[in-house]
Amino acid sequence: MDTSNAYIAQLERELSAQMNKLDNGFTNIGKALQYAVESGGKRIRPTLLMRVCEAFGGSVEGALPAAAALEMVHTFSLVHDDLPCMDDDDYRRGKVTCHRMFGEAAALLAGDALVIHAFGSLADGYINSSPKVGLRLVAELTEAAGVHGMTGGQDADLLFMSKKPDSRDLIKMYVMKTAALFRFACRAGAVCAEADEESVDTAGLYGERLGLAFQLTDDLLDLGQDESVGKVTFATINGFDVTKFLLQEAVAHAKGFAAKLPDSDYFIRLAEFIENRKK
Amino acid sequence: MDTSNAYIAQLERELSAQMNKLDNGFTNIGKALQYAVESGGKRIRPTLLMRVCEAFGGSVEGALPAAAALEMVHTFSLVHDDLPCMDDDDYRRGKVTCHRMFGEAAALLAGDALVIHAFGSLADGYINSSPKVGLRLVAELTEAAGVHGMTGGQDADLLFMSKKPDSRDLIKMYVMKTAALFRFACRAGAVCAEADEESVDTAGLYGERLGLAFQLTDDLLDLGQDESVGKVTFATINGFDVTKFLLQEAVAHAKGFAAKLPDSDYFIRLAEFIENRKK
Repeated sequence: MDTSNAYIAQLERELSAQMNKLDNGFTNIGKALQYAVESGGKRIRPTLLMRVCEAFGGSVEGALPAAAALEMVHTFSLVHDDLPCMDDDDYRRGKVTCHRMFGEAAALLAGDALVIHAFGSLADGYINSSPKVGLRLVAELTEAAGVHGMTGGQDADLLFMSKKPDSRDLIKMYVMKTAALFRFACRAGAVCAEADEESVDTAGLYGERLGLAFQLTDDLLDLGQDESVGKVTFATINGFDVTKFLLQEAVAHAKGFAAKLPDSDYFIRLAEFIENRKK
Repeated sequence: MDTSNAYIAQLERELSAQMNKLDNGFTNIGKALQYAVESGGKRIRPTLLMRVCEAFGGSVEGALPAAAALEMVHTFSLVHDDLPCMDDDDYRRGKVTCHRMFGEAAALLAGDALVIHAFGSLADGYINSSPKVGLRLVAELTEAAGVHGMTGGQDADLLFMSKKPDSRDLIKMYVMKTAALFRFACRAGAVCAEADEESVDTAGLYGERLGLAFQLTDDLLDLGQDESVGKVTFATINGFDVTKFLLQEAVAHAKGFAAKLPDSDYFIRLAEFIENRKK
């Protein structure tokens, strides 16, 4: 996406600075955290948070601790998701997974530390400037990452391996597992800019639909491979056409909410970019 | 300890109320959280937090969200510690462990959710009354539970299975793994009561020595069993006498700090109780 490189560069500096402080000089846990965080994803969630904050008149700098916290929570979920008792993956983004590199127990603890220090990023980042914003972000991140959001969605995903879900349950699981962090990205960006509550809600609805679209494009891009291994996804159950239709609906909803946001052109184009992404 | 039953009853009500809110009505994760939290330990850490808060003139009610957060973090560490890739324990406190009851992946996620919602307890508990206290507690809990505290200590514990530690490293590991949460209990109690910074530090030093004493009594109580399975602890390496001496030193230090706290008699007696406990 266009100018987002400048945002990513700022985020990388913030993440690097935070990771350096997480070396305890005693064990390798700091190295495991660094390895996981530096395994270089697209940083789409934190960049979105920074863009929303700026659109509402906030400073990008003021959004950085929240953006770093979000990426740390996302990375924590990947580290635990890759563990043998979950997806048992050996590679992620072309590198060996954290537990293949550092061992299973060390990766479990590295994931634990990442989510703990994500909340630390919020505390350190806002304790002097605005404790109220900081604690509000803690509440929002808990809601997005906890049993009603990402972690609850991962638990539903597990459940569906033994008990075939219907389409409604699958979409509910997607909204929790994937869309909740996108919703957080947009709500948190608005909260950082101290936008009014109605704007926070509108931004959140945009983020949630964007996140659902993101998951549905994943389904479509992986359809062939998922079918070959018998994986249960909305697309493997309902086929390409219905999934594509639902994706278009989610994108249309997202664009509807984007129209109510400041800098709406950018957020509309982002929804279109997600719809047409090729990984 | 004497009147602590009233404190425990209040804490149990708070934990129960919070666990009820963590049922997402979709998966079993709420039941797993409840099972883990209700597996009934001694609640020594949260009770300590409540007592310190009251000693500094704060209300017990005002300490409850922090006390619940602390017990949730402690429980999270036990759930993950019991997993097959860590200690691989089938029983804890006379009940089957969380992963034996709900499966390994579900227990991993339940632990994740517990630590996430511990921070949520701080956010919900203080957002209206005192966001500054709430965010300060987030910072303190991160420090106590993260790479410089409990999780870093667990990582050191793992490391020492393959690389025999010297006595200094073992004590450093104990201070991180066990004493950091006791230190948090005392610092957080003082923070909840809005005590001055010097008092927060003194309370924290008391808690840290108390926590070290707690771990050393564990070593002594388990010495025979630990020797029979070849477990590396301070006591199995250095023997009963030296460990007992170090315990007495830690208790003496704790009592020295206790003397500087309000309601010092109680905290002195608590240190003596820990020294002489029989499990």
